[in-house]
Amino acid sequence: MKDVQAEPDRRGVPIEKVGIRNIRYPITVRDRSAERQHTVASVSLSVNLPHTYRGTHMSRFVEVLDRHASEVSYHTLGEILGEIRRSLNAEESHIEVAFPYFMRRRAPVSGLEATMSYDCTISATLAGSLEIAARVEVPVHTLCPCSREISSVSAHNQRGLVTMTVGMTRFVWIEDLIGIAEESGSSPLFALMKREDEKFVTERAYANPRFVEDVVREAALRLDRLSGLRWYTVEAENFESIHNHSAYAVITRRKDG
Amino acid sequence: MKDVQAEPDRRGVPIEKVGIRNIRYPITVRDRSAERQHTVASVSLSVNLPHTYRGTHMSRFVEVLDRHASEVSYHTLGEILGEIRRSLNAEESHIEVAFPYFMRRRAPVSGLEATMSYDCTISATLAGSLEIAARVEVPVHTLCPCSREISSVSAHNQRGLVTMTVGMTRFVWIEDLIGIAEESGSSPLFALMKREDEKFVTERAYANPRFVEDVVREAALRLDRLSGLRWYTVEAENFESIHNHSAYAVITRRKDG
Amino acid sequence: MKDVQAEPDRRGVPIEKVGIRNIRYPITVRDRSAERQHTVASVSLSVNLPHTYRGTHMSRFVEVLDRHASEVSYHTLGEILGEIRRSLNAEESHIEVAFPYFMRRRAPVSGLEATMSYDCTISATLAGSLEIAARVEVPVHTLCPCSREISSVSAHNQRGLVTMTVGMTRFVWIEDLIGIAEESGSSPLFALMKREDEKFVTERAYANPRFVEDVVREAALRLDRLSGLRWYTVEAENFESIHNHSAYAVITRRKDG
Amino acid sequence: MKDVQAEPDRRGVPIEKVGIRNIRYPITVRDRSAERQHTVASVSLSVNLPHTYRGTHMSRFVEVLDRHASEVSYHTLGEILGEIRRSLNAEESHIEVAFPYFMRRRAPVSGLEATMSYDCTISATLAGSLEIAARVEVPVHTLCPCSREISSVSAHNQRGLVTMTVGMTRFVWIEDLIGIAEESGSSPLFALMKREDEKFVTERAYANPRFVEDVVREAALRLDRLSGLRWYTVEAENFESIHNHSAYAVITRRKDG
Repeated sequence: MKDVQAEPDRRGVPIEKVGIRNIRYPITVRDRSAERQHTVASVSLSVNLPHTYRGTHMSRFVEVLDRHASEVSYHTLGEILGEIRRSLNAEESHIEVAFPYFMRRRAPVSGLEATMSYDCTISATLAGSLEIAARVEVPVHTLCPCSREISSVSAHNQRGLVTMTVGMTRFVWIEDLIGIAEESGSSPLFALMKREDEKFVTERAYANPRFVEDVVREAALRLDRLSGLRWYTVEAENFESIHNHSAYAVITRRKDG
Repeated sequence: MKDVQAEPDRRGVPIEKVGIRNIRYPITVRDRSAERQHTVASVSLSVNLPHTYRGTHMSRFVEVLDRHASEVSYHTLGEILGEIRRSLNAEESHIEVAFPYFMRRRAPVSGLEATMSYDCTISATLAGSLEIAARVEVPVHTLCPCSREISSVSAHNQRGLVTMTVGMTRFVWIEDLIGIAEESGSSPLFALMKREDEKFVTERAYANPRFVEDVVREAALRLDRLSGLRWYTVEAENFESIHNHSAYAVITRRKDG
Repeated sequence: MKDVQAEPDRRGVPIEKVGIRNIRYPITVRDRSAERQHTVASVSLSVNLPHTYRGTHMSRFVEVLDRHASEVSYHTLGEILGEIRRSLNAEESHIEVAFPYFMRRRAPVSGLEATMSYDCTISATLAGSLEIAARVEVPVHTLCPCSREISSVSAHNQRGLVTMTVGMTRFVWIEDLIGIAEESGSSPLFALMKREDEKFVTERAYANPRFVEDVVREAALRLDRLSGLRWYTVEAENFESIHNHSAYAVITRRKDG
Repeated sequence: MKDVQAEPDRRGVPIEKVGIRNIRYPITVRDRSAERQHTVASVSLSVNLPHTYRGTHMSRFVEVLDRHASEVSYHTLGEILGEIRRSLNAEESHIEVAFPYFMRRRAPVSGLEATMSYDCTISATLAGSLEIAARVEVPVHTLCPCSREISSVSAHNQRGLVTMTVGMTRFVWIEDLIGIAEESGSSPLFALMKREDEKFVTERAYANPRFVEDVVREAALRLDRLSGLRWYTVEAENFESIHNHSAYAVITRRKDG
């Protein structure tokens, strides 16, 4: 059978990335407390394509993914990307793996445990060197400092989302990023709380009012002190309880120059 | 050209509904204050198909929609469905039109005006008679009665969504349904508020704590008194500020028997 | 601390369902070939609430879920729902568990294996008796019979989605439902195919043209013969390659009366 | 009332962007054939915040948006951003407006007309100078060259999405971008087609097979020739009819140096 993809191309246009997108696969990832956890990922894989070839061979991406789904981690990304590069005869290869990451969390007073999930995305590029980035979305509780100041009682509060994307120079635990995000809001969230926990969290948030501006600044100060990062972006989005739109703030910083 | 759809079918299986789904179209709807408003709809149209025919003629749905997009309202639904039934030689026809509905709203203290949007869906069936239903999703502010009771200060609050679906025996203004939903929460939402409004809304919500259970009960009592309804379903979903999941309640009631 | 939820309610309005919605949890489900598989679910749990009580105790839903996440299956649903009913002092309890279900699939000619995923939802209600339903969404390939007939070459084809929801009288394998959906389209989909498989699938689809009307009828005939079903709904939606909207058909049938 | 946002901040962290996100508003945009069209937008507005201030005044964004919703266009973006910058005392202001854009389209043989919609996003930044970018998502029909070559009949085809994002040095019609995207696939899509159109489109696609790699290259060659662009990114995503994942390609090019 003719290999149409391997035909020469005369249009003279190199392609930055070509590959597959949003294939859903069961994977295993590393986990600080249990060593490894099972989760479900949406994966995108791609390579560059020189101007001389008409197409790439998409099935090879799936073959590489299938061989490596049992461990997708900081430590295996280089291997996966090297294999893709070889298998597709490319100079550059890319991967993006988005998955919910699960952690057991204890309620602050009752100590009861349940599981929380956080949306994570690991992405990596192997060109000359290997560049790895991680992104984690952490839901937090935020209480409005202005509403607290001007109101005779209470303050509006809401669920917010802190999204941190970091370029890494060495392995960083997702758990540490989640911790930073949670300290930057008015209070963390929990899957399971009893009344004593609810009282604690309500009062903690009132003692700790935070605008989205405060959230990104608090996170930035902590990310500045965290080693292993080349750069970071921290975003905070509040699903305002008094509006039907969001408040949003973002800070991006390079740490290595 | 052969009409494959019109071929006889020997499998003996009638089809309940066949048609097109999620076609996006600019439409005009009725509006209590401005008479009519422009919006954008996602439309689904269908008919029944007797067991004797292989297929329906999908392009005719688009033709009917295109002729009527300049006024989709309670008053034109019967005409649209009649035309679909005739055009497709069917006994039953169905329509579902989902669109954002816009209303100018005044902030409670400053009186400043801006536009709020509410997701609406109008659906109708013409079989023997014409049945029309409307669904509106109204974001509200809810403050937790338990958190208020047990905490020394403040209470957790959040954005919630009240969804009301009603079967109608006569025309009912979307504005009236929105009003009922907003009265059932701790406070309505506004697109534009100044500090005096924010203070008002914060204190109003604290004076008016509501569980999802309270929200659906308050709405049910009001819907019981609203004339023109054959049945209703009211749902409340709170995007809990202290959890990453929702609290949810639903009541369904027939009023005509 | 005061139990606000347990307060009497004087509004006289019983609530059909109240509970938690869309909590994401890692779960284990049964699997025909591997016995059990790890996946990730979005879970909703609820009970009825008599008119005499103000609220339900939401944290108890999470406690029950956490105890049973290690096996959510047809065989444990009754136990989970019984525990919810007892824990919340209710007459009726409900569960809905939505998750991707994974299956190894062999390409039709090369025999190469990879993993496909299918969105499933198991829902159950324990009132007097236990009612269990399953829903599975199966992507298929469909080729248009009309386009094939009238065109001098080729025919437009596309990805479609077959959604089957079934009420069960006894355990039915998800694998059997997926099989029925795939036989009802022009061809199944595969995650991994080589050129010989692509040729096979292209030619198979052309030999096997199917409207959405054909897809639901073919599935209905097969579901009629499958034992263990009380009722079924089968829907087919084609993401038309020549339109930016879908073609859609649905058949619902009771089998037990 | 105290202005908490205006308080000095001692953390020393400037914020890149702070503002509101995803507020839905009815807007009017320019249109080549009808001069202007009504549509519905999701709008995000932001400014930079120097390290010396604690917060921004979110309500002012809504006031500016409300004043300008009756014409959001290439020609008014500078004015809107200037007003935001003044109103919020900022050095930089940003806007992003996402909306469906509607066009009447004639079927290729029957000449019948209906409306197609395309997702557009206009974004702009006013810092030293004004930078404007547009993004448009154009659904197309693509037919696989490999499947056509190796199969004895037919070829798999599907709906694909061409996304073009362009930085502009002068006004460019959305209609021209849509035209380029549609020429780059195997065939355009239509909302309304009769059998003669369906035959035409089926045969046109077969005569015109295109990988995602071909689509982005064809679009790139045309975007290279289009004047008024500083840079462009063109992406093609095929919702493969034989897989449950996408094929994807992207090219980015600067034109001004």
